[in-house]
Parts: sequence; structure tokens; C-alpha cells
Amino acid sequence: MAKVNPNFKNVSERYFSAEALKRAKPFIDENPGIEIVKLGIGDTSEPLVPAVIAGLREGVEKLSKRETYRGYGDEQGDTRLRKAISEWYGKRNIGIEPEEVFVSDGAKSDCGNILSLFSGASLIAISDPVYPAYRDSALITGRNIMYMECSEKNGFIPAIPKEKVDVLILCSPNNPTGAVATHAQLKSFVDYARKNKSIIIFDAAYSEYINGPTMPKSIYEIEGAKQCAIEIQSFSKSAGFTGVRLGWSIVPKSLIAEDGTEGVLNQYWNRRQMTMFNGASNIVQEGGMAVLSPLGQKQTHQQVAYYMENARIIREALESVGFNVFGGVNAPYIWLKCPEGTSSWELFDEFLTKAHVITTPGVAFGNSGEGYMRISAFGHREDIEKAVRSIRENFGTIAK
Amino acid sequence: MAKVNPNFKNVSERYFSAEALKRAKPFIDENPGIEIVKLGIGDTSEPLVPAVIAGLREGVEKLSKRETYRGYGDEQGDTRLRKAISEWYGKRNIGIEPEEVFVSDGAKSDCGNILSLFSGASLIAISDPVYPAYRDSALITGRNIMYMECSEKNGFIPAIPKEKVDVLILCSPNNPTGAVATHAQLKSFVDYARKNKSIIIFDAAYSEYINGPTMPKSIYEIEGAKQCAIEIQSFSKSAGFTGVRLGWSIVPKSLIAEDGTEGVLNQYWNRRQMTMFNGASNIVQEGGMAVLSPLGQKQTHQQVAYYMENARIIREALESVGFNVFGGVNAPYIWLKCPEGTSSWELFDEFLTKAHVITTPGVAFGNSGEGYMRISAFGHREDIEKAVRSIRENFGTIAK
Repeated sequence: MAKVNPNFKNVSERYFSAEALKRAKPFIDENPGIEIVKLGIGDTSEPLVPAVIAGLREGVEKLSKRETYRGYGDEQGDTRLRKAISEWYGKRNIGIEPEEVFVSDGAKSDCGNILSLFSGASLIAISDPVYPAYRDSALITGRNIMYMECSEKNGFIPAIPKEKVDVLILCSPNNPTGAVATHAQLKSFVDYARKNKSIIIFDAAYSEYINGPTMPKSIYEIEGAKQCAIEIQSFSKSAGFTGVRLGWSIVPKSLIAEDGTEGVLNQYWNRRQMTMFNGASNIVQEGGMAVLSPLGQKQTHQQVAYYMENARIIREALESVGFNVFGGVNAPYIWLKCPEGTSSWELFDEFLTKAHVITTPGVAFGNSGEGYMRISAFGHREDIEKAVRSIRENFGTIAK
Repeated sequence: MAKVNPNFKNVSERYFSAEALKRAKPFIDENPGIEIVKLGIGDTSEPLVPAVIAGLREGVEKLSKRETYRGYGDEQGDTRLRKAISEWYGKRNIGIEPEEVFVSDGAKSDCGNILSLFSGASLIAISDPVYPAYRDSALITGRNIMYMECSEKNGFIPAIPKEKVDVLILCSPNNPTGAVATHAQLKSFVDYARKNKSIIIFDAAYSEYINGPTMPKSIYEIEGAKQCAIEIQSFSKSAGFTGVRLGWSIVPKSLIAEDGTEGVLNQYWNRRQMTMFNGASNIVQEGGMAVLSPLGQKQTHQQVAYYMENARIIREALESVGFNVFGGVNAPYIWLKCPEGTSSWELFDEFLTKAHVITTPGVAFGNSGEGYMRISAFGHREDIEKAVRSIRENFGTIAK
């Protein structure tokens, strides 16, 4: 008499990336001679840097010898990596204990699973538009959602909710808008959360794309955040680990929930991970330690700069033909406003059929994304230049 | 106002492996000169076989070059690996389509997450004793549990439930008892599930330890199982991937739930994985393909035989001193009956303090495990021999 989880009916049949590919397929199939540049999903394109390759090689070689082979590691992550992450925060003057670091197989898993910490009746506040995994995970697990609207008017950073919510999910730099919350904006959320004993889930997967020292790269730069915020991080975009899979979450011991004593959320997340996860791959964790080494940091920062130069090129080209663009300065995403009267999907089709560029329609990130389109700056430089030439040639100068 | 998930209060503070280590710690700390042999958790000890190391190396090298670097893979797994797994079943005359194969980061994740397919009100039948992750995952997600008792009387294979249940979790070869369900026993479960439109979750992580062709290695050897069973598999114990992390689940398209049309569970699991998982590491998946290659199969089977020789040695030694033992013939676990009047934890303490061997008390696997103890056959041969010598010397001949 197994009954299926009825909440699956509340999400679209396909995850957004699959939806865009499906939409593009007929044109691609009918035009086999046309080369398409894919700037849809935020997928890294450049090979792993040498320092990281060396770390991964070492990870493999260790498993080949009896003396260095290891089986199960700690579910929470290799002690050395947890320590390295703690020190990485320390260099930014943020005090995170290794026991507050939980290494994962990537931010996407944690974004979905972290909600298991909270009561099923929780009201979850989610930005709109935003990375769809939060919304879809919340829907599949049957949560109530309140959307925090992001628009040109508020610079795509939502205001604190007027009502009381239990959990707030924030993403800065934002995917898809590229907007970054200021210190003051994050402070308003931290103050709100502390006042209401709410918990903030802060997705900082793109923090390494922030240019310069003024914008906050971690929510823990805000005073009091360790009492109300969980931070999710990833090696995917900062080190090209999209397919390698590694990330982490910080679950501070000092978090305070409405009905939970200090320490309980750290303890429960520990219990969840020990029960339903067996740690990230030991090979991959060796790679993660290499990312955080001085040489790894230097080399991966250069790669981030490469993608940000892509972003500059795309942004400039789009502006030159008359598009109104946002983002692309502290994030690898350009958020493009559709010309008056053109929908997200219509502009998606135009970019595909005229410029042969795959993008992501803004509406895929939520209703408030309608009228916008996201272009990813990940890609080989020559592909970015090809896309840009094609955009310049095929769109000419259009009205804003 | 964040409220914590109240179900965490229904599980013990620590996962069972952490509990046993905690219990052993004082003795270890007070006796630094004594060398302890750890036969508690089922942790592989031998290095990865050469064919697999070659595959993993290739996985790393691909990421070092622009031409072969890949970012995100399919959340469901690399098409080549899904095909290889489908063919692996094909060699056993089981027809599984690649689209029914979902590659994961290991069986433990899937064992916990698979329950999200089913309504929160589902009644879950779980063997007792059994691998505690099922029970704890079900408790954390607030499910109702019905325990299926396994005892010496039923050869540690439970009978089908008398009442109607929604989901049944079976594990064969069983962890911890080492018992293997026969064709007839599995058929009774498949018949029950088809009659009641229940779904069986079949954990086959130890199937490679089955000796000879008569015992079923997959639930799909039973007619009709593709209408009622999900199978979870792992590279952990068959190829030493406990720390490398790789597994898979088969979610047939032909599954029939009480209120779900054919195909819906396959589609929902696909949606769950796309939303809350980003695929197993591409490096690790290259290793997985190497495991399934002819050379990989040959070499990993030799490693399994090595551990099974360990099991034979342990079993023989325990019997020679008078213990009543089960398992260890088609599974890498020996299930030892405690002498009359001795509890699981008491025997755990005796093995630790007298023989300097860490085991796992049977009661950690459920109430019906009280009065038993699990000994793992994973370990270097000389450690196994050391433990066995110590057991023979320190236990002498004891009453059954």
C-alpha cells in the first residue's frame, strides 16, 4: 500500500536545467551545422589547476598502498580539511571551530538536506528569483514557502520579511542576479533573525567572485551571525569542482532556535550526516586541501579572474547593443533585462535562434525572474568571444 | 521562530559506530601499551586493486587537460557507468535499463534519502537486528516503524509481516547477522509486496560475498520484483570504496505503488536526485567503471575472497573455543551468540579487555540483537590472526 510523496506534484516535472535543454533541443537537432555556445548552466570549463591535480593524484596514490590506504573517514570530513577550512575563515578574522565545519559532497546536497534540521511546519522564506534547488527541495519536503521579491527597485536584494518566518535562505553573491548584499543589508537580516529566533541559511558558493574587500564574503562578518546563521560553501565554482564534488557547511554551536538549546543544531546536523551520509570522497578531500594551500589559493584565484574577465566581456557587449544588464561584477552571472514586451522564454529563443547562444530564462528562477535572462560567464575565452561577436552582429542596437 | 525537527529526540545521541568507540575509549586511553585489533565497523583494509587505481588515475588526469576536463555530469550518473551497471545485471540475466540506474555517492545516502519517495504517513517495516541507518533515517524523518524480528528460530530471515505495511526494508546478505535470504524467502516478500502494492527496499551491498550460484544476489532474480522492489548497491565492500564513495540504486520504471502510476517512482527519484544531489564525483565514477571491467572484476573478486578467508579463520577460532556462531560464510560478518546470561555490551567489554578486540554489540542493531555480537572480517590477515590468537588464549573453552 505504498503511497507516494504527494509533494512531488508541487514541483515541475523537470529541474530547470533539464527544461532549458529540452526547449533548445529541436533547434539544435534541426541545425546540425550550427555551433551553439552554451552559456546556460554555470558550468566550469577550465581544467583543474596544477596544485589541485597534485593533491588529487596523491589522494589516489595513497589508496594504492597498504601503508596509506584508508577506508571510512569521518562523516563530518577529514580532520585536516576541517582544520584547513577553519583556518581559511581565520584569515578573514572569522572564528569557526573545526567541529563547526561539516564537509559535504557539494552545496546542492546540503541546500536540500539542511532543512531536515527544522520542523516540517516551518515557514521558509526564499528569495525570488533564486537558485531553484532551495525552492524545489522545500516543496518536495512539504514546507510552506514565503517568497522575498528581488527586483530592480531593491537592487535584487530582498528586504527582511514583514511577518515572522522560521528559516530564511539567502544567496550572496546571488545566483542568478549577480547582486551582492552589503554589510548593512546582511545586518538587517541577522538582526531580524536574532530578534525572531529564526535561522538564516546563507549560500556563499560564489563568495570568491567578490571583487575587493568592501562587500561581505561570509555572513559571519556580521556581528551576531553565529547565533542565527548556517553558511553553505562549495569548491565547485572557486576551484572547478563542479564534477569533482566538494563543499562544506558551517553549523555553529552557538545557534539559537526558538525551541532548541545552544548546540543542538550542531549536534543534530552531526547526527543527520552520520546517519544519512558517509563523508565526501577521500580522494576529493585531498584535492580540497590542495585548493586551500597557498599555491592552490593563488592558482584558483587566477582561474576565478579568468571567468570574471569573461563576465566583463559579455557585460560590455550586451551593454553596447543596448541591453540593460546587472551582475557580472562580483559574480559570474550577467542578469539581463528583456526588452519591453519580451518574455524570458521569448528572449531565450531569440538568443538561441539568432545568436546561437544558450542562456537561462529568468523565470526559471522564480516568478520575479520573468522579464530577465541569465547568462553564465563560465566558458573558454574563445567561446565567449564567439558568443559576443554573434550577439553584436545579430542583435544590432536594440531599444532598452 | 525556527523550530527544530522534533524527531531527532527519537534517535540515540550518537550513531552506533560512534557509541562503540566511545565505550572503548577509556580502556584504550588507560592502556597505551596494548595494541587493539578493530573488528568493530565493517571497514575495508586492503589497498584498491591495480585496475581500479588505473581508472582513478585516468579520472584525475582527464581533469588536468582542457580537452578532457568536464564540469557537471548527469546527476543520475555518467552514461557509461549506468550502461556498465545495466550490463553487469545483464550478465546475471537480469534486465535493467540504464535509465533505471541511479549512481550515488554510496548506499548509506540512498538508504536514508530513498524514503523521500513515500508519503510521510508510511509504515516502514524494518528487520531487527539490522544496519541502523535505516531505522535512524526513518526515525529522523518521522516515519512509523514496524520491526520484523530476526532470530535463531527463523535463521535470522524475517517472515513477511502479518499486517499491511507500505515499505519493507530488507538487507541480504544481512548486516549484522550474515544470513542470506533464499529464493523462496525473497519470493514470499515479492508476492506479499505485489499483493499489497508495497515497495521493498532491497539493500544488496554485500551480494559479492555470496559463495556459489544458488543464493540470490539480486532481488530481481525473483519474478515480479521489478514491480515492487528498489535495489541499493555499493562499491564499498566489493571494491574497497568505503572512503572513495560510490554506489547505485535501481528504481525500475515498472514499480507500482498504491496511488502511483507505473513510472512515477522512477520519475520522482530522478527529480529528487536532480534537485538535492549533483552526481557522484567524476573521478570516482571512472574508478567505478574500472571495477566493472573484466580485469577489475577479477581483481576485486580476489580481494573479496581474501576477506572471506579472514571470515573463515575467525569463525573457526570462535567455534573452537565454544562460541555459537552464525554468518561468515556468505557475508563478511560473524554473528556470535553471547554465552547464557551475558549481554551484548558485557561481551563487547570482555572482548575488549581480555582479547583486545573491538567488536560491535548486537543490540546496537536493534533490540533483537541483544545477546549477540558482530565481528567484522575486514582487516589485514596478520591482525585477524593476532585477534584469533588472543581469543583462543583468553577465552579458552567456554560453555555455549
